[in-house]
Amino acid sequence: MVQNWLVVGIVSGLISVGVALYLYFWVMKQDAGSEKAQEVAGWIREGAASYLKRLYTALTLVAVILGVIIAVVFSFDLNQVGIGPMEFTLASGLETAGAFIVGAVCSALAGYMGMTVAVQANVRSAVAVAEHLNKGFKVAFFAGAVMGLAMVGLAVAGMSTIYLVTNNPEVVLGFSFGASTLALLAKAGGGIYTKTADIAADLVGKVEVGIPEDDPRNPAVVADNVGDNVGDVAGMGADIFDSYVASAVASMLLGAAMGGPLGEMYTIFPLILCILGIYASLIGIQFVRVGKNGKPGKALNFGTVFTCSIFGVMVLALVLVGGFDISVFWSTVTGLVTGVLIGFTTEYFTSEDFKPVLETAKVSDSGAAITIITGFSYGLLSIIPSVVGVVIAMLISYHVAEASGVITGIYGIGISAVGMLAISGMIVSSDAYGPIVDNARGIAEMAGMDHEVIEKADVLDSAGNTAKAITKGFSISAAALTVLALFAAYAEVIEAHGITLNISLRSPLVVAGVFLGAMTPPIFSALTMLSVTHNAFDMIEEIRRQFRAEPGILKGTVVPDYKTCVSLAAEGALSSLVIPAFLAVGLPLLVGFVLGPDALGGFLGGAIFTGVVFALFMSNAGGLWDNSKKFIETGKYGGVGSEAHKASVVGDTVGDPFKDTAGPSLNTLITVMSLVSTLFAPVIAVFHIF
Amino acid sequence: MVQNWLVVGIVSGLISVGVALYLYFWVMKQDAGSEKAQEVAGWIREGAASYLKRLYTALTLVAVILGVIIAVVFSFDLNQVGIGPMEFTLASGLETAGAFIVGAVCSALAGYMGMTVAVQANVRSAVAVAEHLNKGFKVAFFAGAVMGLAMVGLAVAGMSTIYLVTNNPEVVLGFSFGASTLALLAKAGGGIYTKTADIAADLVGKVEVGIPEDDPRNPAVVADNVGDNVGDVAGMGADIFDSYVASAVASMLLGAAMGGPLGEMYTIFPLILCILGIYASLIGIQFVRVGKNGKPGKALNFGTVFTCSIFGVMVLALVLVGGFDISVFWSTVTGLVTGVLIGFTTEYFTSEDFKPVLETAKVSDSGAAITIITGFSYGLLSIIPSVVGVVIAMLISYHVAEASGVITGIYGIGISAVGMLAISGMIVSSDAYGPIVDNARGIAEMAGMDHEVIEKADVLDSAGNTAKAITKGFSISAAALTVLALFAAYAEVIEAHGITLNISLRSPLVVAGVFLGAMTPPIFSALTMLSVTHNAFDMIEEIRRQFRAEPGILKGTVVPDYKTCVSLAAEGALSSLVIPAFLAVGLPLLVGFVLGPDALGGFLGGAIFTGVVFALFMSNAGGLWDNSKKFIETGKYGGVGSEAHKASVVGDTVGDPFKDTAGPSLNTLITVMSLVSTLFAPVIAVFHIF
Repeated sequence: MVQNWLVVGIVSGLISVGVALYLYFWVMKQDAGSEKAQEVAGWIREGAASYLKRLYTALTLVAVILGVIIAVVFSFDLNQVGIGPMEFTLASGLETAGAFIVGAVCSALAGYMGMTVAVQANVRSAVAVAEHLNKGFKVAFFAGAVMGLAMVGLAVAGMSTIYLVTNNPEVVLGFSFGASTLALLAKAGGGIYTKTADIAADLVGKVEVGIPEDDPRNPAVVADNVGDNVGDVAGMGADIFDSYVASAVASMLLGAAMGGPLGEMYTIFPLILCILGIYASLIGIQFVRVGKNGKPGKALNFGTVFTCSIFGVMVLALVLVGGFDISVFWSTVTGLVTGVLIGFTTEYFTSEDFKPVLETAKVSDSGAAITIITGFSYGLLSIIPSVVGVVIAMLISYHVAEASGVITGIYGIGISAVGMLAISGMIVSSDAYGPIVDNARGIAEMAGMDHEVIEKADVLDSAGNTAKAITKGFSISAAALTVLALFAAYAEVIEAHGITLNISLRSPLVVAGVFLGAMTPPIFSALTMLSVTHNAFDMIEEIRRQFRAEPGILKGTVVPDYKTCVSLAAEGALSSLVIPAFLAVGLPLLVGFVLGPDALGGFLGGAIFTGVVFALFMSNAGGLWDNSKKFIETGKYGGVGSEAHKASVVGDTVGDPFKDTAGPSLNTLITVMSLVSTLFAPVIAVFHIF
Repeated sequence: MVQNWLVVGIVSGLISVGVALYLYFWVMKQDAGSEKAQEVAGWIREGAASYLKRLYTALTLVAVILGVIIAVVFSFDLNQVGIGPMEFTLASGLETAGAFIVGAVCSALAGYMGMTVAVQANVRSAVAVAEHLNKGFKVAFFAGAVMGLAMVGLAVAGMSTIYLVTNNPEVVLGFSFGASTLALLAKAGGGIYTKTADIAADLVGKVEVGIPEDDPRNPAVVADNVGDNVGDVAGMGADIFDSYVASAVASMLLGAAMGGPLGEMYTIFPLILCILGIYASLIGIQFVRVGKNGKPGKALNFGTVFTCSIFGVMVLALVLVGGFDISVFWSTVTGLVTGVLIGFTTEYFTSEDFKPVLETAKVSDSGAAITIITGFSYGLLSIIPSVVGVVIAMLISYHVAEASGVITGIYGIGISAVGMLAISGMIVSSDAYGPIVDNARGIAEMAGMDHEVIEKADVLDSAGNTAKAITKGFSISAAALTVLALFAAYAEVIEAHGITLNISLRSPLVVAGVFLGAMTPPIFSALTMLSVTHNAFDMIEEIRRQFRAEPGILKGTVVPDYKTCVSLAAEGALSSLVIPAFLAVGLPLLVGFVLGPDALGGFLGGAIFTGVVFALFMSNAGGLWDNSKKFIETGKYGGVGSEAHKASVVGDTVGDPFKDTAGPSLNTLITVMSLVSTLFAPVIAVFHIF
């Protein structure tokens, strides 16, 4: 039965990729608009391509180095340590290294497809929206679906193939580690890129020379629009890809730990959930449409809830027919419901319909400092629904599973994470929609389209922001449950190698580990944000230099040198990743090899605790400041140009790296740290100083 | 021998209080200056007295309610639960309740003495500095020493007396809980008060009507100066009082847990350390003086290092002569050295001699947003030396103690915390110096003293800021070690009542506890900071109202109504404490009674981890912004009035509630949570739902 399911997995994955390709060509067939619009879109496309080329070059280097290390380390038979000479079997090392490389390649491929269609869809969506709001929406959403479906398809096909070939979930872990390493670099690098360009473009363009946003005279305008794609499309996709795979792999490991035929059945179950999720997303995507006078935001939310419902029914049917214990259904539902609830409650803190955003807007006329303090404080409070939600989901799914007497409680937690993430096909589609319509608006402005078109594009854009807030809450919570499952998987792998793991908080070594781990997410956030400001300063110098050297640029008679800004942003972002990448991959190994597996367990725990807190707080505070600025721009408290508006712009600028650079990278950081620890757990179990 | 030491403790405590009283009268004998200066000082004194009256009224209410609960709960013999009818012995309940009340009263008394002398010393220091820099320094420092010595004296006398009477360290825990409850309200209340007044005074005074800082025409100017006293003097004193007592009590409990005559000897050892610390501080204080052309900052730092050295020698002598194991000496030294090192390394992030402050100042001419992002990021990085320092101190003192074969490792950690805090007499003296000279400067300005005097007062003031940074690093690190010891004490007390405590991170209940605990410090920070902005808005309305109603105020012909602003600040601060106080006392009990002792263990752990991170980050970021503003005010990057200066003012204003309201209250929060849990551990051990 297991093999049949794996074949179904491969086929379903390929179907998903196939539909993604079909949608890709559908999008490409749409009208690409006037020559001017195509020229503008062309600049963005080139910029994105040049960034991706650099990113993938850097990644190839990292992947080769890590791949070689993995191949060598996993060729030794660690069970022989202290018993006799270690056997060296290159095949087993190559298996894991191969899985690692395939994971990285699949993740890169999904990101590449997503980016490629996004930079074609932006101009087409702008042209389509001129015709009809719904048409513009459809182009952007289907383009988003290309990445959503490519991503889940490649993930499921990849995991199924590797498990079919090796029959060893620890090798699938290598696949997950590959995907996550890529995700970390793509997400953090993209986050630094996008905010570098955004801040530099704003500070010189809007503040110094007083030209509007997205003005083609600004040398950084192309870099800014490229940034939306590399940060929000490719980065976000890689981020969810990584949680998606990690949750499935963690649950597979926890299933395998149950042992016997039962274990075999439940090892495969997470993959089956992913398969059902693919079909639920494929169906759900068909039902996302904006009726006459309909609101795009509602359409996206309806799509998410509808997909959840279909998926729930499918899982129930599977459990009843397939002979699985009913507790896994409850765990799945717990995850799903929690994900949706967290998404909607988080909206309270970031939507302009509620107190936090309104109050932050209101206090802004007393100056930027009060805007910052208020938004910062509400950002801290915004962690409550998600943390409480994750805690409740964890306890329910654990106890339901334990009470079944069939599966382990911790497996139930893993399944609730998979339940949240199984519908990622749909989630990513609505999330990728956001930056595409944001770009569409930019192109409409830069290509000098009618004012009416820009207004319609604005409607699409604001829907993107709402969807983004919800999917962010969703993905951070899912990541929290995923790393909890990975954390349990770490313990299982360590103990499977004959070492008793003691991660009691009464042990000073564990507490030391927790403190060091707790320190990592704040440090990572600080380093990425400082990179943004440093790189932005370099770009500001370049923009000023261009304005000085060629006065024709500001007059609009000379096209600025967009490429130099694009290169600066790309180089800056990638070179800023060295220390953060070390923190993610090197520090856990260092802690493990020096302080031992118990301390490493504590370290992972600590990183998870502060990681979740900081990720939620930074993402939500950023969204809150952004929306309170937008609220003031609707004419409240003096509107654009007022003191309140100036203060809210400061809030928004502070929030930019919070919500687009540091906050969302933290998920990936803690996933990578958990994965590298679990992967190397067998090695750490035998080699450590303390 | 134990009883002898306790008598020595009582006598030494009284000596310390005696010297404090002597210094108090010495300060009072100094010249109080012109009638104008005395009038100004009188306003501040009255304002401080009216705040203290309200604070102590509120505290009496809280103390009575908690006292009654403690008296009733601890009258039941919990060892009988499930065995037979519980005996009700009112005497044993009254013992703990009495200790609780005495703890609160001692802490209040120390704060009262400190405040009383501070509001007399400020004007006297201003008068003295006119004569000679060294004389002004001496008045302010000796006034600070009044609180330092009163505090340690009352603490040691109180603990010794209670232990002498009851011979039960769990009753001394009641004393500590009383002191900490008061500290929490004094610290958080004072922090809200001071920043409410500061922000309101600045926003209307400096920004709206354009009058300088400390201008007597500003109706909030007195409230602002009162705030320095209630926040920085009384609040900070209560804060260190609470860590000081808690570290000693935690170590006493851990000593008692060793059992037998050995346990008895080591139960008393933390008290002996405190006694030696008193004498070391008494000696050290004599050596703090500013030579001709000497720098006050250097004098304070010299005093700290000198006191540490004397104390180290004393402890070595005690250990060699008194037959204690040498490992306790090493633990003590580890704590001391770590405290000093953390203090000095933290200075890297907050002093204007190093990159973080300089860079934050430099980027300020690109606008407030960049100032905030940069300062925020360096604030996050600033946690590294302290966290690594605490981890190393913890591991060293644990392993040294374990290796001794005599005492337990965890007792070693407790002793290193006591080692850090034993010289609190000196630490508090130099810390309380800061707000006194800050006030002196304010009075000099308000009373229209010579420009030269104001300049000299500025020199004294800047030394206060440096001392403050070091003592803050010191006190947060000490609090971290203290709560780790308390955390261990919690486990000991639970197990002493026959319940096995499992706080492994592999248990979902524990992880749930950790998540909930980790959420508490950020929420507490958010609530106190939102209180500051809300209350500041009320006060801003009042200031505007006064300016409107009486135009003579701005002309300087009519004295504004200072009292209303003082009352507003006091009422606002105290009414804002209800939810934060519930978080500190109610939430741990709720978690314990609902989720059980294991989850409560996790909860405390989580609160400690994020509490330490947020406390360090917020305090340091605040100091960094403050100093980068001061650096610009020396004329760099355009100096006062430039764009860079405006941005740095935003940074400074954001940093104000970070460093003076939220950050330093977190120590006390986690101490109170640990104490209430440990105190009620026997009850929770027998009554809990899960």
